Amino acid sequence: MLDFHTAGESHGKGIIVVVNGLPAGLPIDFDMIAGEMTRRRNKAGSGPRMSMEGDEVEILAGIRWAKTLGSPIAGLIRNRDYANWQEVMNPQGKPPSTYEPVTVPRPGHADLAGAVKYRYDDLRNVIERASARETAGRCFAGTLARNFLAPLHIEIGGWVESIGEVKAGSGENFHEKSRRARRSPVATYDAEAETKMLEALEHAGRDGDTLGGTFVVVAFGVMPGLGTHVKWDERLDTRIAGALMGIPAIKGVEVGDGFANSRKRGSEVHDEIIRSSSPSFPFTRRTNRCGGIEGGVSNGETVWARCAMKPIPTLLKGLQSVDLKNGEEKQARYERSDTCAVARALVVAEAMLAWEIARACRVKFSGDSMEEVLDRFKEYRSYLSNYRML
Amino acid sequence: MLDFHTAGESHGKGIIVVVNGLPAGLPIDFDMIAGEMTRRRNKAGSGPRMSMEGDEVEILAGIRWAKTLGSPIAGLIRNRDYANWQEVMNPQGKPPSTYEPVTVPRPGHADLAGAVKYRYDDLRNVIERASARETAGRCFAGTLARNFLAPLHIEIGGWVESIGEVKAGSGENFHEKSRRARRSPVATYDAEAETKMLEALEHAGRDGDTLGGTFVVVAFGVMPGLGTHVKWDERLDTRIAGALMGIPAIKGVEVGDGFANSRKRGSEVHDEIIRSSSPSFPFTRRTNRCGGIEGGVSNGETVWARCAMKPIPTLLKGLQSVDLKNGEEKQARYERSDTCAVARALVVAEAMLAWEIARACRVKFSGDSMEEVLDRFKEYRSYLSNYRML
Amino acid sequence: MLDFHTAGESHGKGIIVVVNGLPAGLPIDFDMIAGEMTRRRNKAGSGPRMSMEGDEVEILAGIRWAKTLGSPIAGLIRNRDYANWQEVMNPQGKPPSTYEPVTVPRPGHADLAGAVKYRYDDLRNVIERASARETAGRCFAGTLARNFLAPLHIEIGGWVESIGEVKAGSGENFHEKSRRARRSPVATYDAEAETKMLEALEHAGRDGDTLGGTFVVVAFGVMPGLGTHVKWDERLDTRIAGALMGIPAIKGVEVGDGFANSRKRGSEVHDEIIRSSSPSFPFTRRTNRCGGIEGGVSNGETVWARCAMKPIPTLLKGLQSVDLKNGEEKQARYERSDTCAVARALVVAEAMLAWEIARACRVKFSGDSMEEVLDRFKEYRSYLSNYRML
Amino acid sequence: MLDFHTAGESHGKGIIVVVNGLPAGLPIDFDMIAGEMTRRRNKAGSGPRMSMEGDEVEILAGIRWAKTLGSPIAGLIRNRDYANWQEVMNPQGKPPSTYEPVTVPRPGHADLAGAVKYRYDDLRNVIERASARETAGRCFAGTLARNFLAPLHIEIGGWVESIGEVKAGSGENFHEKSRRARRSPVATYDAEAETKMLEALEHAGRDGDTLGGTFVVVAFGVMPGLGTHVKWDERLDTRIAGALMGIPAIKGVEVGDGFANSRKRGSEVHDEIIRSSSPSFPFTRRTNRCGGIEGGVSNGETVWARCAMKPIPTLLKGLQSVDLKNGEEKQARYERSDTCAVARALVVAEAMLAWEIARACRVKFSGDSMEEVLDRFKEYRSYLSNYRML
Repeated sequence: MLDFHTAGESHGKGIIVVVNGLPAGLPIDFDMIAGEMTRRRNKAGSGPRMSMEGDEVEILAGIRWAKTLGSPIAGLIRNRDYANWQEVMNPQGKPPSTYEPVTVPRPGHADLAGAVKYRYDDLRNVIERASARETAGRCFAGTLARNFLAPLHIEIGGWVESIGEVKAGSGENFHEKSRRARRSPVATYDAEAETKMLEALEHAGRDGDTLGGTFVVVAFGVMPGLGTHVKWDERLDTRIAGALMGIPAIKGVEVGDGFANSRKRGSEVHDEIIRSSSPSFPFTRRTNRCGGIEGGVSNGETVWARCAMKPIPTLLKGLQSVDLKNGEEKQARYERSDTCAVARALVVAEAMLAWEIARACRVKFSGDSMEEVLDRFKEYRSYLSNYRML
Repeated sequence: MLDFHTAGESHGKGIIVVVNGLPAGLPIDFDMIAGEMTRRRNKAGSGPRMSMEGDEVEILAGIRWAKTLGSPIAGLIRNRDYANWQEVMNPQGKPPSTYEPVTVPRPGHADLAGAVKYRYDDLRNVIERASARETAGRCFAGTLARNFLAPLHIEIGGWVESIGEVKAGSGENFHEKSRRARRSPVATYDAEAETKMLEALEHAGRDGDTLGGTFVVVAFGVMPGLGTHVKWDERLDTRIAGALMGIPAIKGVEVGDGFANSRKRGSEVHDEIIRSSSPSFPFTRRTNRCGGIEGGVSNGETVWARCAMKPIPTLLKGLQSVDLKNGEEKQARYERSDTCAVARALVVAEAMLAWEIARACRVKFSGDSMEEVLDRFKEYRSYLSNYRML
Repeated sequence: MLDFHTAGESHGKGIIVVVNGLPAGLPIDFDMIAGEMTRRRNKAGSGPRMSMEGDEVEILAGIRWAKTLGSPIAGLIRNRDYANWQEVMNPQGKPPSTYEPVTVPRPGHADLAGAVKYRYDDLRNVIERASARETAGRCFAGTLARNFLAPLHIEIGGWVESIGEVKAGSGENFHEKSRRARRSPVATYDAEAETKMLEALEHAGRDGDTLGGTFVVVAFGVMPGLGTHVKWDERLDTRIAGALMGIPAIKGVEVGDGFANSRKRGSEVHDEIIRSSSPSFPFTRRTNRCGGIEGGVSNGETVWARCAMKPIPTLLKGLQSVDLKNGEEKQARYERSDTCAVARALVVAEAMLAWEIARACRVKFSGDSMEEVLDRFKEYRSYLSNYRML
Repeated sequence: MLDFHTAGESHGKGIIVVVNGLPAGLPIDFDMIAGEMTRRRNKAGSGPRMSMEGDEVEILAGIRWAKTLGSPIAGLIRNRDYANWQEVMNPQGKPPSTYEPVTVPRPGHADLAGAVKYRYDDLRNVIERASARETAGRCFAGTLARNFLAPLHIEIGGWVESIGEVKAGSGENFHEKSRRARRSPVATYDAEAETKMLEALEHAGRDGDTLGGTFVVVAFGVMPGLGTHVKWDERLDTRIAGALMGIPAIKGVEVGDGFANSRKRGSEVHDEIIRSSSPSFPFTRRTNRCGGIEGGVSNGETVWARCAMKPIPTLLKGLQSVDLKNGEEKQARYERSDTCAVARALVVAEAMLAWEIARACRVKFSGDSMEEVLDRFKEYRSYLSNYRML
């Protein structure tokens, strides 16, 4: 089925991605790929590191004349700065004589736990792989997924809801929020909140501090029947929760208003079923508090989930740590970093949502060629359109 | 690798569980199994259904003279009420002539989406498998995991934090909370809150309504180095988030104070690293806000996560729905149910946390026999105890 | 995806099978299941053990009114002799005071390697799981696969080609061979060879010796396009070779005349492509030496493979071994056994071929309900029927 | 656990390999990699294509200063001839106006089945991925596996036994055969047979025909206890058979003398267990007919398997085929090819055997760092050395 694998260190030659399981004959929109790779970069809260990153994807395999071949797709996102790191990240050779290993772990990062686990003598080995740079690979895989979803009329969106203590207002509908967020430097839909978020970022940055926040990711146009209730590890919510929580710095996920709903009564939470005049499916809901998933299966409403991101752990003002060589107390090293990565994590989260929805669609529709996928999709739409229990 | 598979319908012959990958020679504590299976049953908020459920596990394979064989373990949790459902759930034969299929889906359940997906002509087919009854199987698998974790000095606990709008007080340390919760009918540690929770349950029940809530699950004694930062789908937080979100009615998961931390500054969130005088590992933290996981790897602190559970969707007062046969508006059918399942879901969530921690331990220590596992565990403890980067 | 898991010890309560991934709405033919379970038993060469085995499958889950539910299917094949083994194979309790562990490993079995691997103090722990009894579980899973293949017009067959040095004659076409083999006590198609095989079995049995042999398994009606050339571990030949070699005592597998073809020239081996007047696919071959698989993909011809089975390693006349407790030389213990298991292994091999073909069909057609599978199958047939490259 | 993924088309930019699951701190011998990549090329029977192939592996990730990082390893084997194929294999753009798709499938290749499966309008899409070029990727992965096996004292070897009808003589012991084969242009150990094989190749080449053959792959130093009898798909023979059969043009696999043994009596086949004076394990065998695997588990003897390779299907003299555009009969197109690939397939088969043995060792020893792996290996050796059942 659909899976992907990334390799690559932050300052190595690049991030490599291999994607298995897309059907043959899927048209690939290279502008969409470039667009998403760019979205991941230039946002408020980014430091100088981001503008230096090269996020062009070189396709190495699996695509010919802008269509998938059905064979594995490989992409390479080169590190443009590799020349400056050649010696330090050399696959061959030896450490330069002047090289100083990193030995003071940063709280909030995998540094300490990773070094202990892999018995490293240099924290750089953790830093390089645990870096958010690897998410460029997830973005690429997720954008291939978006390409696959487009002809199935599924679209992925999202927006930032809060940065630090600043929360966006209630806003309009999901489509509108998502559309507006695309043009905002903090990826939010609320102009007033945007101003305050930018201020908060400036304040925090001035204090050498960092901020986290929350965002919502959305899948529009998801048909009922993705995921399953028969196997816990194939439930749509199991998969989505894992994929979102696995993004660096994401520490909370809720499907719909999960936490708020836990405080309400059943009669205030569940989405009653009513008849619909829509030509696509004869039933709908008055509300969508459950995030479009019931019993682990998509129910035909918009799928949406909220993520909580912790503040970036690399602070200019420093955090207390120790030197692992000798146990001495030290300030955690400051690797060049940003004040806030919420708007960028949103892009990665959209990619991962796209990925999981695409994966579930591959299970539902399968087919070795896009032609078969579309036939099956159309057949299913027609079945849904006339749905009646027999 | 450790994996498990369940089969079984709610009113069928029983729930069957097959567990692959436990080492040979692991002593199995049958009292612990019986204890956990019982914990899953008798809690405040349960209706008459629970007291009727038979939750004895019959071991069919993989255990001999109270020790694992290293071969797959199979357990069967019989449905004691099967005699009354024999005709309706018969694997062979035909529908009884008087049988009436269920055709009105309950909002909040997989009913509608599942029926559409699998093209059922009877919602009973969804109801039977999407039932919380299947979690008895997860409990059994998770209790085997607890058996495996015990000699590794890892213990699983948890407590209910809120039911509806009633929230427990701040309480003492995790161990104390967990210990107290075991004796509470609502699985909470705070006697005052307990009284209010029971009142809230009574009120809601009287109104024909239901309640959800939140709870925390905890793994004590987790060594640094479980999970990994090198592969997103093998991160410890990816796995735990998926396993918890995949429990019926769980709609939110946070590792540590994920959502609250998203509103704070970096300097207030991250857990600074200090020297420790503990003989087990020379470094520790002043705080544990990150839930014991950094960069997807356990960091040696207690692992903890919070779940949000929605109110039970089967309400005596009914929810609006439609009849799928003819599209007519109907009240959703009332399957005998409970007012609140939060205390029971906690038990399932503890089982799933035990499972995922055990799985990560199998990756870290491996070994075909418990003897090898323990050798490796001891070697690792000694390594941790004297840890210094070389 | 289609997968199955077995658990169970030879003299334990039974063999448990869980099958994941069959679509909903598949009619199950219980007579076919009973028939295949019986075929696995009563053949020439069997000793008294086989007639005692109970091979009735009790369906525990996943099937209702003779149709699959789409949820996992669980079956239990009870050991009718368990009453006599209750103490020795008790999941709980302790070894009976009179119990003598097995400590002399039988050459040709997993005894020694398994005991070393799992650190057993009793070879019975290996014997019980490495037993051919477990293949009853594979038969059940394979027969469910046959049920799934039937509406796709795919049928599985096979025949014994040789027992010891006795080889069947050239015979007629595959269908005829397969049909005749079903009625033969040694599962061969050639009456003359049958007589000689039975003689050879009698001779060997009289000498306290055992025999192996070869057999062919066949899948009729396989459409082109199962398996894939794009990923080595999803090639159809990779999967089939593994599934057949994994049957106890199978030590050789060839797809088509693999070994004989290695001695010929290319012009004598490859199956030239010609036009066909068949309504099902416009191209065919004059020969089918490659076993219906080219480049890891089924090519539309009959899929066939040959297996070599070693003689049963449990000999009445004994083989030299050692006592693992003290290193003393001993004769290997004689567990009640048969002279020859080739005809029975054929049944298991057919089951595993059915399984792998079904698995590949699930990938090709997918669908959550049999209705969808059949729609897709029909669409594909019509595509094949009119196949022309565009 | 250990897995690898390849991507890449024969005339595309290159073959990409991602390897997951090797421990950190494993020293990588780049000369060994270069050596194996070269072995795969220059052998008798190769046509001009091979000498043009560039088989240098560029490491893109996962290795630093000649040691693994524990993160995924990525390698790229560039196609030096890409400049000439740039337009035809362009990931972007359009077909050149002069481009002629391939429409006549070659018998013996995936051409027809692959085109039907993926609905291609150009057989080049199959040819490019089904090409033996992809095995360069498997060689790279297998050589990493050899690097991992070296400190575990496991060595992989092999030799060609026959080419066409020419069979090598009985030869000496396995080590000697393997050693000699390394220096032979046809990878055999028997000087006399070598001469005849070269003659046979010349004859066949002159006739525009091709040859297949058989070879043996061997793993020296395998400890007892790899693989398992408890799960059919994790048996060592299941895995090895699949990995070898999945190599292009391999159509037969036997573990030990699988087919010959099927004709003998049990008393002549099984490897009796005797005491050994070796310091490594107190038991051994007088013979090793079973290929070092009993019941799916390595038994401490040398693991060996034989493969049958069909003759190369691309013949200068042509094979009958059809044009898929219009159904007309045509001679199969001659893609530049070789007379015989047996000696090269041996190198790939050794790589895959190395891979599967390494995978089984990862299961047995696990560990995130090579230090842990070696500790566990040493502990196991000491256990084996003093083995006695307790």
